[in-house]
Formats: sequence, structure tokens, C-alpha cells
Amino acid sequence: MLVHGQPYRTVWLEAGGESVEIIDQTLLPFAFKTVRLHSTAEVCHAIREMWVRGAGCIGATAAHGMYLAARECERDGLRGGSFDRALREKGRELCATRPTAVNLAWAVERQLAAVALVDSGVDKVTVAREMAREIADEDADFCRRIGEHGLDLIRGVFEAKGGKSPVNVLTHCNAGWLAFVDHGSATAPIYAAQAAGIPVHVWVDETRPRNQGARLTAWELGQQGVPHTVIVDNVGGHLMQHGKVDLVITGTDRTTYTGDVANKIGTYLKALAAQDNGVPFYVALPSSTFDWEIADGLAGIPIEERGGDEVAKIAGLANDTEIEVNLVAKGTPVANFAFDVTPARLVTGLITERGVCPASEAGIRSLFPEKAPSIARV
Amino acid sequence: MLVHGQPYRTVWLEAGGESVEIIDQTLLPFAFKTVRLHSTAEVCHAIREMWVRGAGCIGATAAHGMYLAARECERDGLRGGSFDRALREKGRELCATRPTAVNLAWAVERQLAAVALVDSGVDKVTVAREMAREIADEDADFCRRIGEHGLDLIRGVFEAKGGKSPVNVLTHCNAGWLAFVDHGSATAPIYAAQAAGIPVHVWVDETRPRNQGARLTAWELGQQGVPHTVIVDNVGGHLMQHGKVDLVITGTDRTTYTGDVANKIGTYLKALAAQDNGVPFYVALPSSTFDWEIADGLAGIPIEERGGDEVAKIAGLANDTEIEVNLVAKGTPVANFAFDVTPARLVTGLITERGVCPASEAGIRSLFPEKAPSIARV
Repeated sequence: MLVHGQPYRTVWLEAGGESVEIIDQTLLPFAFKTVRLHSTAEVCHAIREMWVRGAGCIGATAAHGMYLAARECERDGLRGGSFDRALREKGRELCATRPTAVNLAWAVERQLAAVALVDSGVDKVTVAREMAREIADEDADFCRRIGEHGLDLIRGVFEAKGGKSPVNVLTHCNAGWLAFVDHGSATAPIYAAQAAGIPVHVWVDETRPRNQGARLTAWELGQQGVPHTVIVDNVGGHLMQHGKVDLVITGTDRTTYTGDVANKIGTYLKALAAQDNGVPFYVALPSSTFDWEIADGLAGIPIEERGGDEVAKIAGLANDTEIEVNLVAKGTPVANFAFDVTPARLVTGLITERGVCPASEAGIRSLFPEKAPSIARV
Repeated sequence: MLVHGQPYRTVWLEAGGESVEIIDQTLLPFAFKTVRLHSTAEVCHAIREMWVRGAGCIGATAAHGMYLAARECERDGLRGGSFDRALREKGRELCATRPTAVNLAWAVERQLAAVALVDSGVDKVTVAREMAREIADEDADFCRRIGEHGLDLIRGVFEAKGGKSPVNVLTHCNAGWLAFVDHGSATAPIYAAQAAGIPVHVWVDETRPRNQGARLTAWELGQQGVPHTVIVDNVGGHLMQHGKVDLVITGTDRTTYTGDVANKIGTYLKALAAQDNGVPFYVALPSSTFDWEIADGLAGIPIEERGGDEVAKIAGLANDTEIEVNLVAKGTPVANFAFDVTPARLVTGLITERGVCPASEAGIRSLFPEKAPSIARV
């Protein structure tokens, strides 16, 4: 998507193939800076320090990290099994940077499997380079397709409203292109609508405690020229009561095969308000986000409790410098739950790369019939 | 209530009767400072700059301001009608500081009516002094009674849970003693439970954008020694899903005679979560907060839209100095709705100075039968 009018992805190979380039997302929205990563170690650092974040973006960055890792193995004169063993060790280092990031381990394993199919170091590097590209392209393509399917929903609302006034979409957190390689999940239908000439306005939940909405979603929508308004997380219900939200689209960190949605803390509250006001509530996701093992999201999905400093402190710009300030008196007890689970009954539909389906086991399996019956169902 | 172990009210007359003392609430929770106000002008400044805030606290401060105003009229040698006219002018100045604060105008009118009953300047000053005391005492007494009635609810929950584990109360914003003269409305049952030896733990919603929960409620609970935990506004639903909230108690800025509750933005979302999880949702209020004219809160109560800087910026402590930081990129559009309306159907009950009643016209009139049928009903 666009940054200062130029198209970008969140991760790409520098033209000479010597380094991997990313956007340092920790500096957004106050500064836009791309960074060149020259080694596996530098990629590990970038993932660990959350210069890149979001499932798709982390996966693609790790895939590119494995390409750099393969180059390092080749430079060390390795080939065959010794190459693969050394590469697996570097893959472990990558996986250790964000242990709960499923896409990270998945990208590493995919690289290892591909590289094992050829023998020479040079061939392995070529394969790893192609696979990094493939993983990034696939992520972008899935998000593009999510956009196409979601576009139909937005177009439907636009026409039902008379085909003149903008469609008001509310979103929570950042499931934007910054969290993937391109397009995003929740934002993909919005960008697709914009491209199709349908006027859209986005209510952007600030998304405390880490403010990914105010910092990242608002920034990427602004760069793309999509009209938007940042609101605090308390506001969405009021807007829905007064007809100011036409539909809600969020992303998800994990979705059970029964349609329960684990997403950034506060998503559940917006889903309740949507239901209470008859506002459609959609969740956009590439199918890699489905958990085919868990039937009951509330009982089965563990909710990460993070450090209290994210609640007690906040970062912002003062005199052109980003600093952190304390929001509570010293010693005030705080708690920080990172996600919540929105039960399937509150979800109008899931927007996947294969189409839109009801948030139910039958609905999901209608789009993904090849998925084996889960352990939980046996 | 206690501050550094000493009992305080939010406003009181300094012993010699020369000045009115208040707590500068804008400095909380990072500094506790009392301020002496020596003139009507200084009281106006304190109310305008929100050194004092909250309906009951503003009303009592204005009542004390009218006492200082009466002293000024007396010093000017006025008596009878000229005294009353000069005092009314000063009352107008007080009312202009926060035009929408109903309790402010009410306190001023009550002082004017009382002072008009006597003739000499000295007598008028004595009457105004007594009336200031009466208004403050009445506010404290109403809140104390709200506490007694709410205590019964908390005791019921405590016993139903087996009489051992703490009762978990969630509250939003600050309807604490800082918003009144003493005890508070939503906090009064909590303080009463503490005094009765019932263990209580309070989940304190941060309450963006102005963070009155994190700043004021957490501070006053901490000073009183009530266990509490600050959470961001997104968390309450998740806690209720997991049985970590036994009841919700909030305050209200205005409640229709049919039981619809206008309160700080985000209250509605917590009420929805409470209903979805079978958690009782109570609203505590002195009866002065009832609006006897409006039947439909959603349609009838205007919602203030405030300046965007409250959303775009936030204040916090850095290097022992409170500063403001920007949370969004320059030029990012923001919107700031201050209140929302929770429909009566989501409110389990209203805790008033006369007892607890259902949030319905019949329920409210059962406690306040003397209220004339409203215009809206005729």
C-alpha cells in the first residue's frame, strides 16, 4: 500500500538480494523509517524488538530471515545434511524471538522443507529466496482476496443506503497491511472499496493499551487517503446506538473451527454493541488463522496476561521526541489482558480468502471441506 | 474519606470562616494539594479550571462560593434588596463557570432564596454560611445513605459466594467521594462494605479519554486502603466472561424518570457485557440526578462532543513532572463523545438515598412518589 504516495510492502528483498528491508513499525506514526537487515541475527533482533509485528508480517519476515540464514550457511561452505542442520539451528533462533507467533514457526518449517529438496549450497540459497518471495506473495494474495470478498459486503451496504453516503466501518486494533505483507485483513475490504470508488469512512478504535489503532491503523489509512476518525475504545457503542456505524470489521489472532474469535482485548465489547444495535459484525482472516483443534474459544484459548507497564505507561510525542509517561500513581496495581474471545453467536460472518461464511462449524467447513475432522470432534 | 490517613471532604470552610478550602483535583494522583479560596472570583476560577469537578462537589463548592460572595456584599455595606441584587450578580458569575452543571445553579438559587429571608448584611452572611454547610452536609448524607443501601447488595453477593472470598466490583470513571463532598455515589457501597468488614476488590476502568478512573478512583481507593486494580476500558467484558466481576456499580450524570442512564462514555458497553454474562449492573445516584422531564434517554439526552485534544493527547508523569504527549500523528482526525446512554433494560437497579429500586418509571416512583407527573407524560 502507499506511503508518501509510493507503494510499499512490509517486507521485501533489497534489489541485490544482499539484505531484507522492513519498516520499523515501532516508530510509526511519528516517523517512517525503513531498515536493512543483513543477517539472521539482525532479523531476529527486528522481530524480537517488534520492529515488525502482526501474524502475516512476522511470517514473511522470518521467511526472508531464512533466506539470509541460507546465504550464511552457503558462505560457510556447507551443503547437504550439514547445511540443513545449520539452517535448522538458525531457524530455531528465529522461532525463539516470538515463541507464540504461529506464522513464524510455520514459515521457518516451510523453508526447511523446501531447502532439503536440493543439495548444493547455491541451490539451497536460490530455493530459500524463491520460497521467501512465495510466502510473501501468498500472504499478499490471500489478503487481496479477502478484500475482494469483503468488498461485496461493503458494496451491499452502500447500495442499501442509497448509493450516495459513505459506508461507516468501525475497526479495532490494527489488522491492516502493516500486520501482513500488503492489504491487511480487516482493512483489505476497505482498500478494495476505495479502489472501487465506494466512499468509506473508518472509525478507528484507539485500542488501549498499546494503541495500535491510533498509531498504526490511523496512519496507514491516512497514507492511503481513506477518511477516518480516531475514537477512544469507549465510544463505539454510542456510535452504533446513533446509526453512525454501518458495519464492524476486525481481524483475529485465532479463530476456532466453530467460529469463536480471539482478538485484541475489547473486541468482544464491540461485538455486543453491534448485536444490540443490529450492526453486522465481520471478522476478516486468512485461513491460516483457524485453529482446527479448539471447539470452545472461551474455555480453550489461553489469554495472554502481559506486563502492567503497558497499562501504567503510555508513549507519545513531546517536543518532537517520543517519550513515555506514567498514567497512574506509583504503586497502583494494574492488570493487562491482551485478548478476549468473541463467541461465534455474535459474529455475523467470517471473511476469508475463499469467501464469506457464517461463523459456525458448518459455515467454515463449507469453505474449507478438505480440513480433517479435528481431534476435539473425534 | 481518608487522605494520608486523615479524614477529608472535598470542600470545607476554613476554621476562621475567612476562606473556602478545596483539593486541587487536577494534580491528582501525582500530588495532593489543598487550596484556600478567598473570594467569589477565586471560587469561579477553581470551578472553571476544574480544580473541583463532579456534580455534588461543584454544587457544594458553589454554595461555599456564595457564602464568600455574601461576605463581599456585606463588606460593601449592602443590605436588603441591594444586597440580594449584588449577590445574584455574583451567583451569575458562578453559574457561568460550568453552564451545564445543574447542581451549580441549584446551589446558587438555594442560597439566594435563603438569604432573601433576612434583611441585614450580617444576618445574610450568617444564613449563607449555614446554608453552605447544609448543602455540603446534605450531599454527604445522601451519599452515606446510598452506601448503606448498596452495602446490602454487596453483603448479599458476599454471602451468596460463601462469605469468604472478596466481592469483585467493577466501576467506570469517578463517581467517588472526589465527585461529591464525601463517600461518593458508586464508591459509597464499597466504602460501606469495607467499614462492615466485607472484603471488596475493585476493577477500576481507566476511562479514556480523561482517565478519571486511573487518576481519581484508583487514588481515592488507594488512600482508603481498598484493594483495586486499574484496567484499560477494553478489559471489563473479558473479566465478566471469566467470572471475575460480581457486580458493576457506576454513577450517572443524568437519569430519566424511566431509568435510562446517561453516564461517562463507555458505560453502555459495560452494561451490555454485564447483561451477556448475568452480572448485576447497578447505578448509584442521589435523586437530584433524576431528570423528571425526559422519557427516552437515547432520543432526549443531548451528548456533549468535546474538543479532540482530550483524545489526541494525554497527560502523565515524566521525571516527576506532569506533561502532555501526543498519541496520534499530527493532523489525524479525532472525535470525542463525552457520555453515552445505557437503556433502562440493561440496568439491574438504581441505588438512591431512599433505597434500591428497579430502573423503571414504576420503580423510581415507588421511591419518589411525591414527584409530580412529568410534562412528558401529560
